[in-house]
Amino acid sequence: MTHPLPTFEDVLEAGNRIQNYVIETPVLQSEALNKIAGIDLHIKAECLQETGSFKLRGATNRLLQIPIEDRSAGVVAYSSGNHAQGIARVSKRLGMPAIILMPSDAPQVKVDGVLADGAEVRHYDRNSESREEIAEELARERGAIIVPSYNDAMIVAGQGTCGLEFAKQIELADKSLDHLICCASGGGLIGGIALALEGKSPNTKVWAAEPVEHDDWIRSLEAGEIRPNAPGTRSVCDALLIQEPGSITWPIGARFFSGGYGVTDAQVFEAMRLACRHLKVVVEPGGAAALAAALFCLPENVKGSTVGVVLTGGNVDMDLYTDVLAGRKD
Amino acid sequence: MTHPLPTFEDVLEAGNRIQNYVIETPVLQSEALNKIAGIDLHIKAECLQETGSFKLRGATNRLLQIPIEDRSAGVVAYSSGNHAQGIARVSKRLGMPAIILMPSDAPQVKVDGVLADGAEVRHYDRNSESREEIAEELARERGAIIVPSYNDAMIVAGQGTCGLEFAKQIELADKSLDHLICCASGGGLIGGIALALEGKSPNTKVWAAEPVEHDDWIRSLEAGEIRPNAPGTRSVCDALLIQEPGSITWPIGARFFSGGYGVTDAQVFEAMRLACRHLKVVVEPGGAAALAAALFCLPENVKGSTVGVVLTGGNVDMDLYTDVLAGRKD
Repeated sequence: MTHPLPTFEDVLEAGNRIQNYVIETPVLQSEALNKIAGIDLHIKAECLQETGSFKLRGATNRLLQIPIEDRSAGVVAYSSGNHAQGIARVSKRLGMPAIILMPSDAPQVKVDGVLADGAEVRHYDRNSESREEIAEELARERGAIIVPSYNDAMIVAGQGTCGLEFAKQIELADKSLDHLICCASGGGLIGGIALALEGKSPNTKVWAAEPVEHDDWIRSLEAGEIRPNAPGTRSVCDALLIQEPGSITWPIGARFFSGGYGVTDAQVFEAMRLACRHLKVVVEPGGAAALAAALFCLPENVKGSTVGVVLTGGNVDMDLYTDVLAGRKD
Repeated sequence: MTHPLPTFEDVLEAGNRIQNYVIETPVLQSEALNKIAGIDLHIKAECLQETGSFKLRGATNRLLQIPIEDRSAGVVAYSSGNHAQGIARVSKRLGMPAIILMPSDAPQVKVDGVLADGAEVRHYDRNSESREEIAEELARERGAIIVPSYNDAMIVAGQGTCGLEFAKQIELADKSLDHLICCASGGGLIGGIALALEGKSPNTKVWAAEPVEHDDWIRSLEAGEIRPNAPGTRSVCDALLIQEPGSITWPIGARFFSGGYGVTDAQVFEAMRLACRHLKVVVEPGGAAALAAALFCLPENVKGSTVGVVLTGGNVDMDLYTDVLAGRKD
């Protein structure tokens, strides 16, 4: 089965389609963070999106395109949690049943978010079970539609609306971004943003942020072909544990990404603390990866430039968050 | 000395004057919070303003009106911390020296914010010293201008720009606010917002939120005349400890406020936790008072209505914040 690759026009269409379903998240600035990073940082706080992450954008764009007569059978999705919450919220809005496969070690706050929107949750073991197979079985049983979390043109286009907004907000501030850093897992968000910037800000270089030991995008971009992570690699960034770039997102990345930065758990925790202190926003580990890269990983020749980062999500369990803020995690 | 009362036109002028110096803070929504409160809640996250509170607005409006030839002598301000940070930031931007009187028990995060912007900090004892007298002495010595934290027409007008933005954002969402709840201390913000809504949304009722044992506005509004707090009353809301309504803010409140709600420390802590969990924003105790009132204090006849609240600041010491999130404070 071949997938059509999404385009800048798909992102524009998605922007029109979903604008009444998502909020325009603010772009924050902090002199304290600029000083630490040595750059002019513009921070898109997508953690303030409803459901606590950007995933609402792609889910809305995808589900709105399911014909009304096909909606009653519902949707099936698998996700570590943020896509799950996006799908659950949009399904509720559109009156569709939803069943979500979540790994048994998903953060409780994400499971609770899905349940609060009335979706059904089925747990699976991240290491021993295939979520794709379980999803296909469930979809067959129910006649439901599987909504992938990133490897889908309309999901990518929906996430890209975050980039459209960001470009507009930066333009309104009479600036232009030299660089944009966004975390990469499946690559739906950063891929969609790259498409948006290709149309709206073609001189902006796009960089992936990844956990340092889960750096499939960085190694794939260097090699010019997909290089999966070793099985079983771990990171505190529960939202960034996809094994390799997708068949739709990889060609976008290969064409548009300039490279990537690997961040350690310790850098992610420090970025979460600094976001709390200086930006007053709550960011989950994966959501802080791009900020960590901007603060701690940039080479000298980037200093002084204008850099955009996306804080992609804020769904962190309170126990972990208080440990991080109290400095008990590093 | 008589003070001119600020008007709706002053707020409009302030909006034009300061628009390039402040960010338009987002209005957030949460289905989970709507469910708890039984209302349609629209939450203006002013804690995301630069310096972590709305105070940047009034400080900018006031200092921009100091003639350039008078700026070199600098300014003197007294504040528990948020006004201090607003003044320090604007002074730095305008190249003015600033000295700030802060109570010796001010949160360290607020002191650090002032120092980071290069202002000088002088501590005083909240219970035994008069900050007004110390400020006047310093101003005389240096020929500097005292910038009050709330009892000043241009400060009130500047804070009111938060209300202008809020009204515009609500209108864009095709809604209208039945009620607006904002914390009241000196009354500069809520007073300015009331002026803005008088012009932009005259059917919105404006309510004050206050610590339950520091409820000078509530008692004053009931009595129809100023009723100060008893000396020495305490609250965890360090930003809301002004003793009585000001000579400029009181007539605004007496005319435009419908009444108020007293909130307990426990309600404030729970509102801080819920803002973290469901809105992904960091709110200081005083900044959470209005949300606490909306969640826990509304009478039955308000249920089902559309209510705006302002989260006014996010400058909370990390130790206290982690204690609150961990449930060690109630």
